[in-house]
Amino acid sequence: MQVLFNDVAAQWREIEQEALPEMLSLLREGPYILGRNVEHLERLFTVHTWTAHAIGVASGTDALRLAYQCLNPDTQMAIQANAHVSDALSALHVCVPYVFADCDEYYNIDPQDEMLCCQGSNGNHTILVVHMYGQAADILSIRQRYPEAMIIEDCSQAYGATINGKPVGGFGDIAVFSLYPTKNLGAIGDGGMIVTSIPEYADMLRQLREYGTKDKMEYNYLGWNSRLDELQALILRHKMDRVPIWIARKREIARLYNEQLAGVGDLVLPKKPPYADESTYHIYPVRTKNRKDFRDFLKRRYCIPTLIHYPMALNQIEMLSASRRKCPRAEEYAKKIVSLPIHPFMTPEQAKYICDAIKDYFSTGGRNDT
Amino acid sequence: MQVLFNDVAAQWREIEQEALPEMLSLLREGPYILGRNVEHLERLFTVHTWTAHAIGVASGTDALRLAYQCLNPDTQMAIQANAHVSDALSALHVCVPYVFADCDEYYNIDPQDEMLCCQGSNGNHTILVVHMYGQAADILSIRQRYPEAMIIEDCSQAYGATINGKPVGGFGDIAVFSLYPTKNLGAIGDGGMIVTSIPEYADMLRQLREYGTKDKMEYNYLGWNSRLDELQALILRHKMDRVPIWIARKREIARLYNEQLAGVGDLVLPKKPPYADESTYHIYPVRTKNRKDFRDFLKRRYCIPTLIHYPMALNQIEMLSASRRKCPRAEEYAKKIVSLPIHPFMTPEQAKYICDAIKDYFSTGGRNDT
Repeated sequence: MQVLFNDVAAQWREIEQEALPEMLSLLREGPYILGRNVEHLERLFTVHTWTAHAIGVASGTDALRLAYQCLNPDTQMAIQANAHVSDALSALHVCVPYVFADCDEYYNIDPQDEMLCCQGSNGNHTILVVHMYGQAADILSIRQRYPEAMIIEDCSQAYGATINGKPVGGFGDIAVFSLYPTKNLGAIGDGGMIVTSIPEYADMLRQLREYGTKDKMEYNYLGWNSRLDELQALILRHKMDRVPIWIARKREIARLYNEQLAGVGDLVLPKKPPYADESTYHIYPVRTKNRKDFRDFLKRRYCIPTLIHYPMALNQIEMLSASRRKCPRAEEYAKKIVSLPIHPFMTPEQAKYICDAIKDYFSTGGRNDT
Repeated sequence: MQVLFNDVAAQWREIEQEALPEMLSLLREGPYILGRNVEHLERLFTVHTWTAHAIGVASGTDALRLAYQCLNPDTQMAIQANAHVSDALSALHVCVPYVFADCDEYYNIDPQDEMLCCQGSNGNHTILVVHMYGQAADILSIRQRYPEAMIIEDCSQAYGATINGKPVGGFGDIAVFSLYPTKNLGAIGDGGMIVTSIPEYADMLRQLREYGTKDKMEYNYLGWNSRLDELQALILRHKMDRVPIWIARKREIARLYNEQLAGVGDLVLPKKPPYADESTYHIYPVRTKNRKDFRDFLKRRYCIPTLIHYPMALNQIEMLSASRRKCPRAEEYAKKIVSLPIHPFMTPEQAKYICDAIKDYFSTGGRNDT
């Protein structure tokens, strides 16, 4: 049985009939840059996230960097150590000093980590909350604990995830989304979105994405050139309607995994945290001690692809980590974590095939004797 | 008569029949990021520019920044003051110190400007050569004068321009191209390309565009996330074949302008420099004293759109210019320059209509009495 880790092209096949005529009309008429499709998608994002402003940019990494440029230069930012490398890399690029905080057992930032208290010279204080693997983080506790902190939400992995029914993106002061193809809402290429309800930030971000100017005469900010393509915005508009259905399908696969894999070997399955609604399963992460054996066995005997998100904690990457503070959970997880295939077009049969393969692995004592 | 400043969508209409089936197949099958289309386009770029390596990135501005990251940190770079704002902005972002040089009467960097001698603390020395408005610059003189300098070519405005038949992009140590829709070779959205024949730079640039790592374990450079989309690469592949024809058509329009507008009013027309082949006319720039009147007259009485490339010299933009060195030519040109409509799909009748409108403007004494 053939199993794909993800199947993003199937998303296009589902929207082709309705999207293609519009796409041809855009290709034949233009404009290709910052036209009505980007504007429309921006409006849809404000509606979805319950925010006032949305700004389409070229990638999630660009979105992070531009958002960080809105921070007070004297701030200090806490970043969770198990996040994506771009979360810290973007801060390095715009010289925002940061410290690493550890994650909780749901892979999200631990609200109790003392590093979340760290403040800059003027008491300026920023916390980056990355909703990991599709699961909304405990941003409400963090907001309550640190009411004076600026909170940036990185929703790249969790478009559509909710807390008490309210989607991520509207909890922080600024929120960013990567629209990379494999995300819950993904483009046919790179793309990103920033949302905020604070008009000053929105105004600054709109200038930052086009060279830091409004009129090409006065340059107010150290801007960049970072725009979401019209073509991508058009496709994203059509996908957006389908995402709730796609998430529902992934949740069915996840439930099957949860049932079938409970108590199998040393596997640690993802759990629903008390602080948010069910994960959207951008990733289905499990942990096992002999990860390499586990992956090799699945790959070689059953042709089942797995991935690692991510092989190193950020505090272990020399270039990103001046302080080398220990983050025990993030470091342990980086050694043991494996992502199983999950996507909206996976059948229950495929999921069962994967579960059976995993049971086979553990029934042979977890050794890779292929 | 309706006249467009440019008509990029007409390019798509010309390639649709051959590009659309391939595009549908890419949309239906993927992959969307760094697949065979980008690889193929990169190979085509190396062939076109007579270089060994090409690296597709997200925009021309990103291409500049990544190229600048290859420079020795102790270098000093000369930038021509009439270039695009991104040429200097990118240097600011990666902390490459620069000085402004003036341009020659062909709008290209003046090889005799003394600022081209400026060196960094270790004698490291960089010159940015921007081929302006479609016209190849005097890069051969600069190479001869400063054989030890690192030369970065910005070919964004001059894809296809040549010196003794050899296309720009292969003269410098590294060359960058913006693939913005309006360029000689333009995508349906943002895109960029970097070429070089130096393997160390190519290796570094490939890592820089994907977070500065080869394997997600070792991070060697302060990288970024900047990739050309597969979809854009596919379209660019198809357009590339047509560009010589499109440039030839623009040259016909330019010849018509040159003939009809010679000696009209105070207009200064673009001239062919002795150091390079005929311009590819990304822009057809003219200069006139009362630019605002001129533009208003054409717009209001004849519905003819014009643009300004660019309204300020870089040394006049406070954010970009610490030294405030005077660049008399660039500053004068910034006040007087106007770009007339020019594109491959303009008819001789449209060009004549524009020439007649301009003659009408000057015959009434150049006053805007509409």
